[in-house]
Amino acid sequence: MNDDATGGGANSQSASGHHSAGLYLEDFQVGQRFQSSEHLLDEIQIREFARQFDPQVFHLDPEGAKSTFFGGLAASGWHTAALTMRLLVESGMPIAGGLIGAGGEIKWPRPTRPGDILRVVSEIKELTPSRSRPNRGMATIRSETLNQHGEVLQVLVAKMVVPRRGGSEGLAGSADTGV
Amino acid sequence: MNDDATGGGANSQSASGHHSAGLYLEDFQVGQRFQSSEHLLDEIQIREFARQFDPQVFHLDPEGAKSTFFGGLAASGWHTAALTMRLLVESGMPIAGGLIGAGGEIKWPRPTRPGDILRVVSEIKELTPSRSRPNRGMATIRSETLNQHGEVLQVLVAKMVVPRRGGSEGLAGSADTGV
Repeated sequence: MNDDATGGGANSQSASGHHSAGLYLEDFQVGQRFQSSEHLLDEIQIREFARQFDPQVFHLDPEGAKSTFFGGLAASGWHTAALTMRLLVESGMPIAGGLIGAGGEIKWPRPTRPGDILRVVSEIKELTPSRSRPNRGMATIRSETLNQHGEVLQVLVAKMVVPRRGGSEGLAGSADTGV
Repeated sequence: MNDDATGGGANSQSASGHHSAGLYLEDFQVGQRFQSSEHLLDEIQIREFARQFDPQVFHLDPEGAKSTFFGGLAASGWHTAALTMRLLVESGMPIAGGLIGAGGEIKWPRPTRPGDILRVVSEIKELTPSRSRPNRGMATIRSETLNQHGEVLQVLVAKMVVPRRGGSEGLAGSADTGV
């Protein structure tokens, strides 16, 4: 379980220039699934994220949160999203050249609560080689963020830029997310 | 300009139970626009967020980032999203009962860079009273996050839960995001 915040797990090596450590577009198949490690979220983390990025009473104050929509302290949805990214980077999605999202759809069907243990299950939904750029393509990846009860806290359907084999420097300096 | 991280601007009062400080579904109109204050993003903030939530070389290391997709240090898209939320909470979108998102679509057409000054311009796209819950509705809000050059860094089309007038305790304890 990852409950520290030091970053840099094994698969994050794939983002440090060692492209061979990760997978290329040709290595993925539609229907393929990946599972991340886990992260224990506590009240301190929830309040600290909220203080910085989402300072609302239901994310900051366990007492004050009781009379709100959430009926108690809940994590910011963006905190759940950020932790999902961390789990994907460190253990959940080994893409060569790193995880580069162009965008996606996000839903939070249920609040994330203190004590939840988060993990991410991802499935490849679509693989599209670029028509104009032979060195890359786009993968559509559906990632469910679950808690320890198997309840779905977040669904993210993301479009990720993925390099193709033989593209030498791969994505270097291309810096736009069109395909 | 907001470049501190202390949270709690004037409009975040709307989330602390003083519902009269914010707007209800009946107060909004399709086409209505809102503009947030600004946030100066620097390299230290970018690297700190990345260390915690998105530990990839192009978000962590200005030198190492040069040979990547981004061609230089860029903020995590989730950092841009989190800062957008902060600007909306503090100054950009005064919804009674606070800003509660059910989900949405997000795109990052251009990387966010060190030195960018972020602001958020939002427009009400759709207002839908709930059929099953008379005390609330859903607002579809399109928020563009811009830098100081007017370049669009992020587009978020979010569905937000908004209380209706006369719903007494409003959203208290309902804790699900369906309509």
